Amino acid sequence: MKTVYITRRETFNAAHKLYREDWSEEKNWEVFGKCSNANWHGHNFSIWVTVKGVTNEDTGFVINLKDLSKIIKELVVEPLDHKNLNLDVPFLHGLLPSTEIMAIEIWKLIDQPIKDAGGELAKIKLVETENNFVEYYGGKEPF
Amino acid sequence: MKTVYITRRETFNAAHKLYREDWSEEKNWEVFGKCSNANWHGHNFSIWVTVKGVTNEDTGFVINLKDLSKIIKELVVEPLDHKNLNLDVPFLHGLLPSTEIMAIEIWKLIDQPIKDAGGELAKIKLVETENNFVEYYGGKEPF
Amino acid sequence: MKTVYITRRETFNAAHKLYREDWSEEKNWEVFGKCSNANWHGHNFSIWVTVKGVTNEDTGFVINLKDLSKIIKELVVEPLDHKNLNLDVPFLHGLLPSTEIMAIEIWKLIDQPIKDAGGELAKIKLVETENNFVEYYGGKEPF
Amino acid sequence: MKTVYITRRETFNAAHKLYREDWSEEKNWEVFGKCSNANWHGHNFSIWVTVKGVTNEDTGFVINLKDLSKIIKELVVEPLDHKNLNLDVPFLHGLLPSTEIMAIEIWKLIDQPIKDAGGELAKIKLVETENNFVEYYGGKEPF
Amino acid sequence: MKTVYITRRETFNAAHKLYREDWSEEKNWEVFGKCSNANWHGHNFSIWVTVKGVTNEDTGFVINLKDLSKIIKELVVEPLDHKNLNLDVPFLHGLLPSTEIMAIEIWKLIDQPIKDAGGELAKIKLVETENNFVEYYGGKEPF
Amino acid sequence: MKTVYITRRETFNAAHKLYREDWSEEKNWEVFGKCSNANWHGHNFSIWVTVKGVTNEDTGFVINLKDLSKIIKELVVEPLDHKNLNLDVPFLHGLLPSTEIMAIEIWKLIDQPIKDAGGELAKIKLVETENNFVEYYGGKEPF
Repeated sequence: MKTVYITRRETFNAAHKLYREDWSEEKNWEVFGKCSNANWHGHNFSIWVTVKGVTNEDTGFVINLKDLSKIIKELVVEPLDHKNLNLDVPFLHGLLPSTEIMAIEIWKLIDQPIKDAGGELAKIKLVETENNFVEYYGGKEPF
Repeated sequence: MKTVYITRRETFNAAHKLYREDWSEEKNWEVFGKCSNANWHGHNFSIWVTVKGVTNEDTGFVINLKDLSKIIKELVVEPLDHKNLNLDVPFLHGLLPSTEIMAIEIWKLIDQPIKDAGGELAKIKLVETENNFVEYYGGKEPF
Repeated sequence: MKTVYITRRETFNAAHKLYREDWSEEKNWEVFGKCSNANWHGHNFSIWVTVKGVTNEDTGFVINLKDLSKIIKELVVEPLDHKNLNLDVPFLHGLLPSTEIMAIEIWKLIDQPIKDAGGELAKIKLVETENNFVEYYGGKEPF
Repeated sequence: MKTVYITRRETFNAAHKLYREDWSEEKNWEVFGKCSNANWHGHNFSIWVTVKGVTNEDTGFVINLKDLSKIIKELVVEPLDHKNLNLDVPFLHGLLPSTEIMAIEIWKLIDQPIKDAGGELAKIKLVETENNFVEYYGGKEPF
Repeated sequence: MKTVYITRRETFNAAHKLYREDWSEEKNWEVFGKCSNANWHGHNFSIWVTVKGVTNEDTGFVINLKDLSKIIKELVVEPLDHKNLNLDVPFLHGLLPSTEIMAIEIWKLIDQPIKDAGGELAKIKLVETENNFVEYYGGKEPF
Repeated sequence: MKTVYITRRETFNAAHKLYREDWSEEKNWEVFGKCSNANWHGHNFSIWVTVKGVTNEDTGFVINLKDLSKIIKELVVEPLDHKNLNLDVPFLHGLLPSTEIMAIEIWKLIDQPIKDAGGELAKIKLVETENNFVEYYGGKEPF
């Protein structure tokens, strides 16, 4: 039995800013540029969740995409969609909502539920714009 | 000499909410749904600006895309990118920043500058998500 | 008050074949090529529905996208998604499910419900593959 | 019987430059910028050809996409793909290969063959980059 | 000499269903949902085939894309395009045509021909919709 | 602290040909096909540069995308955009500009500058058309 990787995409639209209260306006601008705008900006985010495993003999599935989609929608899309990432999201409270930090925190949320559904979380890809995204493998370094 | 239409895309990322202060929370939620979230949400917007005209005999151009791009960047991207559409944008002040309203107001801003550059503004397409956009022809009804 | 066009996309995945029972295998192959495969083939379809109108003074909307999405999902996606277009779809019964015919028949289904929601159906764009699509304006010829 | 519009995409990759021999280097740079590079540059072009008509009663087609694709491949892709638009293309000889000019010249080539196949050429859309394209309706001005 | 990975995409459109004859309708619906529709549904599939190797000193190629494309077209696109994956495809006979199973079976078909062409098959990515795909590394687990 | 991968895209449009002066026309055609056209052809290239690292405690960044974008624009886009890859680019002089070779040479250019900016170059993905791309991990073989 051979390992296959399966990926499901979900999307959410959110506001955020990259801004440290303990820094001056000037320092924030110097480091975060226009992302530090006091009144927020926002993005259409896409999250791609990859699960690895061997195919189930009865279904041919690594994981049922209905189950995977449900996990992502309940634990990621529901709390993030049409929200302010700095203000409205308990699991990001007190953190700078960079895409890197978001990917790390989302991993913690969905890792066990995916295990409970019979899969193994292998990768989270979080796309912020058509020009940038992050990938997180739970801290592993495949390359 | 035959009319050709040429289109240039620019992008901006912004926060907004659809919310009327003169309505109750309930009414706002009923009409605007999750778009009424008090703490804002946001999008990656794309704007496609179409100019019509005949081709210049010397250049083969309807309008020089460098000029068209400059107009859009200065008058649209600069004031909207990484901004809050409800709070930070003078030309949207006091208006509900729906994509429809945004397209109408952007038309007013760039119509004359495009004329001054020798073109004729024919259409603005404003894309909010991969699932929705508006098109505005200056009020004309081509179909 | 100026006319704006607003568009909503929904998607569905379906099987079909282009095949006339009253033609020979050879004739079917000659005209429809591989699309006539007896055991069906299929596509990921996207439907883009465009509604025209003036913006509502209270909401800034031509039509509320929640209402438009609901109409398309109930009347188009529900009966077509994960279905056989030749066998499973009452409103296509007895018709060749070419993208042209599908667009015409979908128009008949959603035209009045969109009117009832306060909009005017202006265009249906039905995308079959990344290389082909049809557009239907209710029979009008804008160009 | 109602008019439907059907569109087929084909692609080609080509080199070109925008440069007038009767202008100085400086003038060329001023007008055409980096597009005037003496040693050429290039693009992945997409051409979208739209044909209008009523659906054939036997086939449900406005035009058979096999026929439309064949016309575009023979008359457009064959002479342009992996070619130099300034040097290698008889029908562009002596012309500045701007996207506007290319669309106008391609129209002349495929208008009659599409008529001969039972359709009516309605629009050519020529995409040069993800940020710009031209549309040509044979000189008509639908909007 | 350094290892480079090169990828070629091809596409095919096919019908299938996920349905076990040895299960009840109810069980099939419970597990496979709308994918179990008796009369099939379908997709536009994209297959991305990745080959690894060092660059040939004469050509700068890991593998000639003409050769790679020919292998995929003959062994994958030809038998799958405009076909029913459950009924028409010898190499999938008796198997549930999930994307996972398809990727595994396609690997077996093209692994040796790619070796014969001087490359080494490294990955198959099979895309079923814009929201899901599988990746298969021949059973390896890179991450 | 966990490793995250962050990717930035930039684009450039260039002309090239795959042609060896020490081979006959016939041999060039046999190996390189239409890519050997004497008068060049061209592409819209996209380059995706991936940097790995742990998140900075102050910023939540692996690397500041402003810095990464600046490196790619100065060292890759500036010398390649609207250029002839065979004639105009010092770092490709004397090399066949296949996408494989280009990825290898670009790695050499940006590896150290990315280190100097506090990151570690992990991958370059160079996309030539919608149907082909190469990936280079500095010679490593992650899969």
